[in-house]
Amino acid sequence: MRNTFGNVFTITTFGESHGMGLGVVIDGCPAGIGISEDFIRQELQRRKPGQSKITTQRKEEDEFEILSGVFEGKSTGTPIAIVIYNTDQKSKDYSHIADKFRPSHADYTYHQKFGVRDYRGGGRSSARETAARVAAGAVAKLMLAQYGIQIHAYVSQAGHIRLEKKYTELDLGQIESNMVRCPDPVTAGQMIDLIDETRKNRDTIGGVVSCVAQGVPPALGEPVFDRLHAVLGHAMLSINAVKGFEYGSGFEGVSMKGSEHNDAFYQKDGKVKTITNFSGGIQGGISNGEDIYFRVAFKPVATIMQDQESVNTSGEKTVVSGKGRHDPCVVPRAVPIVEAMCALVLADHILLNRASKI
Amino acid sequence: MRNTFGNVFTITTFGESHGMGLGVVIDGCPAGIGISEDFIRQELQRRKPGQSKITTQRKEEDEFEILSGVFEGKSTGTPIAIVIYNTDQKSKDYSHIADKFRPSHADYTYHQKFGVRDYRGGGRSSARETAARVAAGAVAKLMLAQYGIQIHAYVSQAGHIRLEKKYTELDLGQIESNMVRCPDPVTAGQMIDLIDETRKNRDTIGGVVSCVAQGVPPALGEPVFDRLHAVLGHAMLSINAVKGFEYGSGFEGVSMKGSEHNDAFYQKDGKVKTITNFSGGIQGGISNGEDIYFRVAFKPVATIMQDQESVNTSGEKTVVSGKGRHDPCVVPRAVPIVEAMCALVLADHILLNRASKI
Amino acid sequence: MRNTFGNVFTITTFGESHGMGLGVVIDGCPAGIGISEDFIRQELQRRKPGQSKITTQRKEEDEFEILSGVFEGKSTGTPIAIVIYNTDQKSKDYSHIADKFRPSHADYTYHQKFGVRDYRGGGRSSARETAARVAAGAVAKLMLAQYGIQIHAYVSQAGHIRLEKKYTELDLGQIESNMVRCPDPVTAGQMIDLIDETRKNRDTIGGVVSCVAQGVPPALGEPVFDRLHAVLGHAMLSINAVKGFEYGSGFEGVSMKGSEHNDAFYQKDGKVKTITNFSGGIQGGISNGEDIYFRVAFKPVATIMQDQESVNTSGEKTVVSGKGRHDPCVVPRAVPIVEAMCALVLADHILLNRASKI
Amino acid sequence: MRNTFGNVFTITTFGESHGMGLGVVIDGCPAGIGISEDFIRQELQRRKPGQSKITTQRKEEDEFEILSGVFEGKSTGTPIAIVIYNTDQKSKDYSHIADKFRPSHADYTYHQKFGVRDYRGGGRSSARETAARVAAGAVAKLMLAQYGIQIHAYVSQAGHIRLEKKYTELDLGQIESNMVRCPDPVTAGQMIDLIDETRKNRDTIGGVVSCVAQGVPPALGEPVFDRLHAVLGHAMLSINAVKGFEYGSGFEGVSMKGSEHNDAFYQKDGKVKTITNFSGGIQGGISNGEDIYFRVAFKPVATIMQDQESVNTSGEKTVVSGKGRHDPCVVPRAVPIVEAMCALVLADHILLNRASKI
Repeated sequence: MRNTFGNVFTITTFGESHGMGLGVVIDGCPAGIGISEDFIRQELQRRKPGQSKITTQRKEEDEFEILSGVFEGKSTGTPIAIVIYNTDQKSKDYSHIADKFRPSHADYTYHQKFGVRDYRGGGRSSARETAARVAAGAVAKLMLAQYGIQIHAYVSQAGHIRLEKKYTELDLGQIESNMVRCPDPVTAGQMIDLIDETRKNRDTIGGVVSCVAQGVPPALGEPVFDRLHAVLGHAMLSINAVKGFEYGSGFEGVSMKGSEHNDAFYQKDGKVKTITNFSGGIQGGISNGEDIYFRVAFKPVATIMQDQESVNTSGEKTVVSGKGRHDPCVVPRAVPIVEAMCALVLADHILLNRASKI
Repeated sequence: MRNTFGNVFTITTFGESHGMGLGVVIDGCPAGIGISEDFIRQELQRRKPGQSKITTQRKEEDEFEILSGVFEGKSTGTPIAIVIYNTDQKSKDYSHIADKFRPSHADYTYHQKFGVRDYRGGGRSSARETAARVAAGAVAKLMLAQYGIQIHAYVSQAGHIRLEKKYTELDLGQIESNMVRCPDPVTAGQMIDLIDETRKNRDTIGGVVSCVAQGVPPALGEPVFDRLHAVLGHAMLSINAVKGFEYGSGFEGVSMKGSEHNDAFYQKDGKVKTITNFSGGIQGGISNGEDIYFRVAFKPVATIMQDQESVNTSGEKTVVSGKGRHDPCVVPRAVPIVEAMCALVLADHILLNRASKI
Repeated sequence: MRNTFGNVFTITTFGESHGMGLGVVIDGCPAGIGISEDFIRQELQRRKPGQSKITTQRKEEDEFEILSGVFEGKSTGTPIAIVIYNTDQKSKDYSHIADKFRPSHADYTYHQKFGVRDYRGGGRSSARETAARVAAGAVAKLMLAQYGIQIHAYVSQAGHIRLEKKYTELDLGQIESNMVRCPDPVTAGQMIDLIDETRKNRDTIGGVVSCVAQGVPPALGEPVFDRLHAVLGHAMLSINAVKGFEYGSGFEGVSMKGSEHNDAFYQKDGKVKTITNFSGGIQGGISNGEDIYFRVAFKPVATIMQDQESVNTSGEKTVVSGKGRHDPCVVPRAVPIVEAMCALVLADHILLNRASKI
Repeated sequence: MRNTFGNVFTITTFGESHGMGLGVVIDGCPAGIGISEDFIRQELQRRKPGQSKITTQRKEEDEFEILSGVFEGKSTGTPIAIVIYNTDQKSKDYSHIADKFRPSHADYTYHQKFGVRDYRGGGRSSARETAARVAAGAVAKLMLAQYGIQIHAYVSQAGHIRLEKKYTELDLGQIESNMVRCPDPVTAGQMIDLIDETRKNRDTIGGVVSCVAQGVPPALGEPVFDRLHAVLGHAMLSINAVKGFEYGSGFEGVSMKGSEHNDAFYQKDGKVKTITNFSGGIQGGISNGEDIYFRVAFKPVATIMQDQESVNTSGEKTVVSGKGRHDPCVVPRAVPIVEAMCALVLADHILLNRASKI
């Protein structure tokens, strides 16, 4: 249950990795937004497997169809349903894992929760579900563009290789210039080498995706439970493999003093601005017009190309063997997913905020 | 808007720091739970200002009244409304801050969002709102006790003083033995000294609260958007001053290898267990029966006893002077708030999970 | 559960008839609306028991307190909590009905659903809960006034006495001129006589409340499930004792022909209007700018001053004796409740509709 | 917006009459329910156009595909997406109505609300959307069957021809024995004649669908706003062309006396029963174990085969000419839709009720 996200601009995703297909119903997208299929396709390409040597070599064409909600190129205010058909779902034999619990996967917990389980390729717990989010996020981005809002995510850590520069010191235009999606070329090179080496060792590593939203107007965020950063955190933590979220000064801000951490206000060109931005563009849970930035931690991918001890549904010892085609590190492909979820949150909050004043 | 949290076991909080009072409506608490006013009072005491030399010396009596939903000592399944009256709201003169934006507070953003603003003591953005959450959390804890679920939060970092031990190496029974609520006596002493020194310097520091939930059954958590950790993250990030959330291996897990990070399954006494618990008790967004643990980062309190430059509602330069009675570090009092929000999430998910199977 | 109504402008009510008190949290009321306590009081007076010889002689003072959300006379955009304390809850002895199921009351069903039950005066199932709705509806009306929207409800049937005139033939200004709240003086007299006679016979009768909303702009209503009339119907059917709802031509429209029933469009003063209004101001679930009108059927009050056979919680035969002070006919006091629920629905949909277009 | 219905067992529908297709995502269906495609098909057949001489002769094949949520014939607890492709959407020329507002249709109100509008065949406001509800309702019925719950709807009025017998005097097994779906053969014949005559006159009439749910356990319904009948009313009023809803004694009960209307309790075979059932199986908003019954009024179909005066989007006078293939009376095909919505409400409330007690 609970496959819906958002309050006004909402998405409901459905589908398993190896069923007929998966998709999303976007409900609450305002009428009058130009919907570009090319843009949606482009965003899906960024998430697609097989796009480089450091991602899984699995082929998923991610061909999609917009079934409803768009007429003469524009959103009509009715639900936009997008279906992505599964084409790579060869009728493989999954019987070897049908009754085994893969370590640190959702096999055991789905089994406990639902009693039955679609064991083919992870079923609903597969990260393939995020393709639907990226398609929906593309629609949200098209809406945000009309408000001058830009979202840029990038890889800031892969395994132990960490980009030390802040986003303000980087050229965000360089993110797509390399396969790991790190805007610093030297660090990007190191990351690529590490991921490639990890792949050769039949192992995996984690990483961090950083994200910046620029041009966000003040007043977005709903106190008290739907503070903007709380909803962003929820959105990010709902992505497969995410283990942590921090915004603004984050965990590091803990050891600062209030006198250092407070962002002093000043006025410039008739606008209230802050000198520093440890708040990450959000104060009291509401955007203040400064850049919003946050970081998302991803664990090492659970599927490794090694044999692992485990138990089966009868509780007996068994071995899960590593085979198939999987990502050695998920963060390069997670970049568009983080952006998509960020776009969905902002689109929703723009609409929510319309109700704040008489 | 959006002052409601939860799906089935829900809370709606209301109230400002200096109005008539604040409170909570708990809707969805199952009938038949013994409601102890003493226990609610005890939980509120843990959050109360003025409880020690390292918290604000402000006096708030937090006397509460249960208006509804409890009959002959038991929940009836109807809404439980709890009101906490404001008693310390002396008709102080707030005119000196009525038109000033305090740095890193919600003054500017509320002004932008709502146009009008209750400027007395932060109004709705005041952390006093969390008293209502603690009262509701107490009710949730009473429900969880019937399932054998125990929640323990503690301070694991204050400023730069960090408790390096894991929760498994600590005696969680010692948490309440000192005023900073750190179960390691030596570290607790260092934290108290640091907070006291910070207070004397008229400054503030941040901190981290760690939390462990034990006895949680498998199967809690709703894929895909309401993964258990995503909802826990949402809940924690909705607490005043929180800047980050991580569970299980968290941000540190990023640099681990999959082969190290995966939690191998084994069977013991007819139960499926994991050898390690980097998953933090949650796999695929669903509890697996192991301990759930997470960490919550709090920024340094924004109110400092120093003069700070700022602007007023007309955009003119002004000075916000530091006065009043405020916490030099928020984490000791945040411990029961973190526990309360955790309890509310688990209570809600126990009820949600009842709908998983036919 | 589910004591919340609305999507953006929401209310959560709480409280039992004989507990400490009852009340409402209004969440989502936009900031900047003038909140008049006098107006709220005036609306509560219209619902109050004991206001005339044809209502119950029970005394309920309905003194209320606004605990939050209003500052310097205006809504602040934060939750408005209103508490109405129970003052007439004399510690009467309710033991004689504690284990009996009163016919056509909620005693048996609450017992089945919750296991425990506050048997004092109906507890949560008492119509006293609607006082909270009227208070909240008053706030909604204050918002609607800024849009030029007026809501008038009146009694159009009491027992078999039925007002045959349409609302367009009536002077709605006369509604409050008599104690039964029927704007036609002759019919009003007949109704009063019938109710008084019924009271003397220690019996009760039902009635119909008609309602008209004028000045509603086009575009309110959310297809497909939250069609404006579907939400109005939901709201009305949630009032105690309601058995039916119809809008526009209603049940009578069934036997009309399409060629008679269709409302032809024409233009007047640059506005699109309809010649007839069998649609009741709502087409395709969305308001079209014409008057919205609907009818609500109330059953005869279940509490009668006569002995009735029944069973108790052990399934044994018993007699429920008629005593106490109750309404012989609920509709005169239901008029402000119907208006309140209508106002809440319209306020919510004005805010919802702000999200329809980019 | 708001294309989702339900709280736990939820449906989200999407699609226009002349786009690629339409469908539904069922989210919250418990795992472990046998899903029969044949049964879904059979239910869709009952709603299908062209099934008899008294329905529209339009051909819609209603071929559907289950994209997700079912594995090895059983629900998995993940979203069940069902798509029905539009096959009869010949690229007809709709330009003649593109800028005209058809009387008593949603053309004008959608235009006002959304600015843009899919004018082909009514777009989203077309009753074709209800095919998705029938498919979802079939799944709900499969769940309800496991609880022994049976739902029977039938036509009790067509135009002025009214079936005077109560449902208890009818053989509900006869409903499907004739094309108008009225279980009384004589009345059915009269209805068929009237509808056929109306069709020949190029006009339309309305009707009433009655519905009975048997085997519903006590305790379903959530006070106070989601009383079972209020949600049933909401569900029914959300169906195209519905103008009224009543349950139990309904509008007629208004003129009864309390002493006649109250349903006396007695015990039989250890069960609490009522002698009469004017309550319609629902007391205080909660099911009491007796049969639930209600009536739904449908207006005459707005599309008539006659020329009608209207205005266009520029406000100029115009004529809407009657052509196409439409139903002279909607109720025979509305029977499965009413059943479907009733099934969805009951399935949702069975799950909601699981949270009532500890």
